[in-house]
Amino acid sequence: MSKRIAGPEIERLIQLLAKVPGLGPRSARRAALYLIKKKEQLFAPLSAAMSEALEKVRLCSVCGNVDTSDPCTVCTDPRRDGATLIVVEDVSDLWALERAAAMSARYHVLGGTLSPLDGVGPDDLNIKGLISRVAEGGISEVILAVNATVEGQATAHYITDQLTGLNVKVTRLAHGVPVGGELDYLDEGTLAAALKSRTAF
Amino acid sequence: MSKRIAGPEIERLIQLLAKVPGLGPRSARRAALYLIKKKEQLFAPLSAAMSEALEKVRLCSVCGNVDTSDPCTVCTDPRRDGATLIVVEDVSDLWALERAAAMSARYHVLGGTLSPLDGVGPDDLNIKGLISRVAEGGISEVILAVNATVEGQATAHYITDQLTGLNVKVTRLAHGVPVGGELDYLDEGTLAAALKSRTAF
Ligand SMILES: [Zn+2]
Ligand SMILES: [Zn+2]
Repeated sequence: MSKRIAGPEIERLIQLLAKVPGLGPRSARRAALYLIKKKEQLFAPLSAAMSEALEKVRLCSVCGNVDTSDPCTVCTDPRRDGATLIVVEDVSDLWALERAAAMSARYHVLGGTLSPLDGVGPDDLNIKGLISRVAEGGISEVILAVNATVEGQATAHYITDQLTGLNVKVTRLAHGVPVGGELDYLDEGTLAAALKSRTAF
Repeated sequence: MSKRIAGPEIERLIQLLAKVPGLGPRSARRAALYLIKKKEQLFAPLSAAMSEALEKVRLCSVCGNVDTSDPCTVCTDPRRDGATLIVVEDVSDLWALERAAAMSARYHVLGGTLSPLDGVGPDDLNIKGLISRVAEGGISEVILAVNATVEGQATAHYITDQLTGLNVKVTRLAHGVPVGGELDYLDEGTLAAALKSRTAF
């Protein structure tokens, strides 16, 4: 705003809201005004929910997930198959896989990928924790659900090497045509992989 | 989420974030995760800013603006022209006009428009307050910056009637072609008004 038209508390709220992904400066103003108007219905409960989540949120010491308990909700869920471990780069990947609801496994969050150029080595990722979990036994399959990027694949290779000798099956996600995807929008690598892994109709 | 994958505090945070304009269920999840990751840099300051704004926000008893002080920042700004009063339907209109930074006037927020079908009559709007302000004297012009809708114009007519005899000039926003607007996208009413109000080149 060119001129002060509201108290510093409101200006600061708008500034910080503008940093939330999905909002920008313009929608931050709109959001702030909406919150102020819906003071009792939305602003107060949201503010309380933020304080509470902020106070309670922590990293799961078992898998690297974020949650309000340690071990996290996923690690302590007794209905999950503890013999299958899905390795992801980031918590957002864990959430995405859970939305797909295709497996009821446990997870291990690496916190990134190996990236020598950015100075990210094995010790900067949660890889030692993964090896320990597998070495403790009880895990029969590790699914490397890392991104299909150069860094993701390099990380997958490194982890596979580290797991050698631990008597665990290491698998990765299938490549192929995305559901609903149109062939002529896909790159050649994906198409070649989808052809190679074709299944009976 | 189909299955509980995080504590109730995080699920509740996502649910409430999804109600903020600009965010939806999907971006609310992304926003929550981003906040958790940027715990010290963004989550904590935003949570504090929300509590503080929530606690301090109030309606300006003079003009109907929302702010953390009463009278509000606009009403107490000594550099503004107190003789010109811009009447708007909503606080968001006040903010929009301030962004335009075209005038340094004071405002009066009606809180809506007359809408007999929705049961909104003069007493449901901040119209009495407007008449009192003008009757007190010191105001030479009232600019009716209401929306160019049927309800907005009906409200403008009603207010103009109420101000009769109070020795104040009542004006309204000019109709015309929006800056950067293309003629063939404009409705006939706007084009006719723009022609009628044409200015020397
Ligand atoms: Zn966990
Ligand atoms: Zn005010």
